[in-house]
Amino acid sequence: MSETNENGAPSRRDTLLPSELVTAARDVIEANRAIGRTVALAESCTGGLVGAALTEIPGSSDVLIASIVSYSDDAKTALLGVGHDILDTFGAVSVAAAWAMAHGMVERSGADVAVAITGIAGPD
Amino acid sequence: MSETNENGAPSRRDTLLPSELVTAARDVIEANRAIGRTVALAESCTGGLVGAALTEIPGSSDVLIASIVSYSDDAKTALLGVGHDILDTFGAVSVAAAWAMAHGMVERSGADVAVAITGIAGPD
Repeated sequence: MSETNENGAPSRRDTLLPSELVTAARDVIEANRAIGRTVALAESCTGGLVGAALTEIPGSSDVLIASIVSYSDDAKTALLGVGHDILDTFGAVSVAAAWAMAHGMVERSGADVAVAITGIAGPD
Repeated sequence: MSETNENGAPSRRDTLLPSELVTAARDVIEANRAIGRTVALAESCTGGLVGAALTEIPGSSDVLIASIVSYSDDAKTALLGVGHDILDTFGAVSVAAAWAMAHGMVERSGADVAVAITGIAGPD
């Protein structure tokens, strides 16, 4: 990806996202596609960015089945089945919550594996 | 957002996404925040990009509750409750499917409104 053409003028970017992200996304799609493994995502603070990066790669629909982005505790419970006990005990930003999100996503999507991300993006 | 600093050297971008998208996302968050309306998303071919853009805006968590990205027909049925009759009759890329996706998302998320997107991103 280049931000300028041979005359130094701005050129149209090939992808919406930075090339480092697209390169990493291509690695993920190609590695999983090679072994026929399907993937689902449960995102929180990243807001869908990981799914958006993976979708930039041609053929990604063979690998990435679905994604759920849940911000609030209520959304994590309603959409991913994360238990209130986990959220109350460990908090939404915890390994336990991430595990429960991934577990809920595998169950709901039927994907071979799920990746969950939780954290605080800030500032609000 | 600037791609170069005052010396003409590449500078770190402030946002991952192009500034036009971030500006549009800010309008969406501010307009909905001003009237206290919560929003959920049901994306398909965009793969989470709309959610990622909205999440770039500080305070977006007051507005954007959750998002589900469903590619396959199975995911639309399992995660959003889109009826097989709708998919069989109108196809996944149809107004009827988008309506059913939005309807399912409002039900599942409890958001005031939901926006659904369906289409073909290509090439695969």
